[in-house]
Amino acid sequence: MGSTYQTMEWRDDRLELLDQRALPTELCYIEATNVDLLIDAIVTLAVRGAPALGAVGAFGVVIAMDQAKREGWDEARLSFEIDRIRNSRPTAVNLAWGVDRVRPLMALGRDAVLADAQAVAREDQEANHAMGKLGADWLLAHIGDRKLRLLTHCNTGTLATTGWGTALGVIRELAARDRIELIYVDETRPLLQGSRLTAWELAQDGIAHVVEPDGAAASTILRGMVDAALIGADRVAANGDTANKIGSVGVALACADAGIPFLVVAPESTVDLNTAHGDDIEIELRGEDEVLNFAGQRTAPYESKGFNPAFDVTPARLITAFVCESIVLEVAKGQTPAKHWRSGS
Amino acid sequence: MGSTYQTMEWRDDRLELLDQRALPTELCYIEATNVDLLIDAIVTLAVRGAPALGAVGAFGVVIAMDQAKREGWDEARLSFEIDRIRNSRPTAVNLAWGVDRVRPLMALGRDAVLADAQAVAREDQEANHAMGKLGADWLLAHIGDRKLRLLTHCNTGTLATTGWGTALGVIRELAARDRIELIYVDETRPLLQGSRLTAWELAQDGIAHVVEPDGAAASTILRGMVDAALIGADRVAANGDTANKIGSVGVALACADAGIPFLVVAPESTVDLNTAHGDDIEIELRGEDEVLNFAGQRTAPYESKGFNPAFDVTPARLITAFVCESIVLEVAKGQTPAKHWRSGS
Repeated sequence: MGSTYQTMEWRDDRLELLDQRALPTELCYIEATNVDLLIDAIVTLAVRGAPALGAVGAFGVVIAMDQAKREGWDEARLSFEIDRIRNSRPTAVNLAWGVDRVRPLMALGRDAVLADAQAVAREDQEANHAMGKLGADWLLAHIGDRKLRLLTHCNTGTLATTGWGTALGVIRELAARDRIELIYVDETRPLLQGSRLTAWELAQDGIAHVVEPDGAAASTILRGMVDAALIGADRVAANGDTANKIGSVGVALACADAGIPFLVVAPESTVDLNTAHGDDIEIELRGEDEVLNFAGQRTAPYESKGFNPAFDVTPARLITAFVCESIVLEVAKGQTPAKHWRSGS
Repeated sequence: MGSTYQTMEWRDDRLELLDQRALPTELCYIEATNVDLLIDAIVTLAVRGAPALGAVGAFGVVIAMDQAKREGWDEARLSFEIDRIRNSRPTAVNLAWGVDRVRPLMALGRDAVLADAQAVAREDQEANHAMGKLGADWLLAHIGDRKLRLLTHCNTGTLATTGWGTALGVIRELAARDRIELIYVDETRPLLQGSRLTAWELAQDGIAHVVEPDGAAASTILRGMVDAALIGADRVAANGDTANKIGSVGVALACADAGIPFLVVAPESTVDLNTAHGDDIEIELRGEDEVLNFAGQRTAPYESKGFNPAFDVTPARLITAFVCESIVLEVAKGQTPAKHWRSGS
């Protein structure tokens, strides 16, 4: 189950990114050699996924510093360009978190920043493996030590992180323990991260799965075909409200109605204690063309407009538990991010 | 707001069908001159929508009788071919209803059957206008006499009926009364009846609308952007459980959570008192290619399988009211189809 692909790699003083826009039909890479190219890769979702964006933000500071040196930018320009990277996607907190983590090291020089960016990437992989074990343990303890039928939305695998994955990391860990019967993969319109990316990762690993339209998720759950649903997160507010790919809250509503667990698997870097609750999370509104077209073909009348919010917010009350790298927080027991991390319990 | 298109028309002894597979880019018609062509049109969804299928079933008996005469079929063969039409799509009860309604008239000759098929089509339009008025009255009485923001799923307009529409008929009636602010149209994957057909009908009528991914429906509702949701139905069980296009129950769950009305608009021919509850409704499972491909382009890895149920079942407890041509049944008041029609109240 070792991946033959990497989401990103720092090599020869450049950030190489797997171009996720071309999957599953093509496996190709792009090089983010300057700030504009990096922001284009982020905005067009050549690289996406909250944990991956954390590392991209950290490496982005190195890319900006290198460009500043080549092109003779002053401090103000460098700061402006780093902010452009930091704010290129508003909902996922990890991008800003990655930038902010390494920024204080700029005074120590470019190599210190690069070393810490590499540490961000390494720590993300370690966190993913830890979440995988905790999440797998929790599911087998709460559902039963048997093969599970799980549902997931969007992509939370190696492609969404620096390796292994969050929700998909839990699925990988369960597969390694031979505890997967079937994974229901929501195709995740409009950009099909489920069918293009998650199904591709599962196919690479030989994990049994079916792709379903997003609209099928609720009935698949209500018909008793699913033991639990797992998603990642782009931002977890202090009270536990969670922003994630559009369609997530619909899965959560169905799980609550069916009485099955709905888990959010996310590293602690996704928790934003400065955001009190979900209403304070800015929801990225993407271009309407993503929903009005497909593969270059218009699917709606030319007179029609599109509504394309990239994320939704699942209220904490619909979340069974958060699986983080050091703990599983069970919401029904009153364990919210704010209570756990603010109180230091 | 008079439609310049018709879903079906009996002309020159042939059934002419608007080919809905080609919309919204092309407006073309096909002629169902024999049973095989008619069944192909039904199975490939060139014609679809429960009320439309009711009329198609009735006209189908005429088509079969004409072919029997041309080709010298015996009674058994004719009966077999009519059954093939009747059973070509299993979930919508209207198709079987339309066949069964005219079948007893076969003894009176082909013209008697044709006259009743035309009556089926005419009565469907009358029922749609009646539902439109009842539904519009109900919404304005329960939400307030103001411009409404409504959400709908799949297509329930002229294209799903013989004219005007069910849920979309209510929307048309509200538009005629200048009581529409905005319609949220779920694109309705995998076959995009929302973006291809509903948006097209709304655009033709100049009714303000936006197309959204199916996954967006729940958050659009939870964010308070919608006053009510309206769908059609393919089969309503005696207890009120309702089969409709995949994705409908997710909309219903969100409406229940948000405390807004969720209306099922369907003619009484869609009510099947012989089906006790939703578990007894056969859910059509369509080919996986519809979800694994789009516009001739593969969207999932070739190793992946697809899960493509065409319908889901919304339990009666999630339905606020049924709008039929003669009555609005409010489920919370204990008004189920069985209680209303069996007791004759």
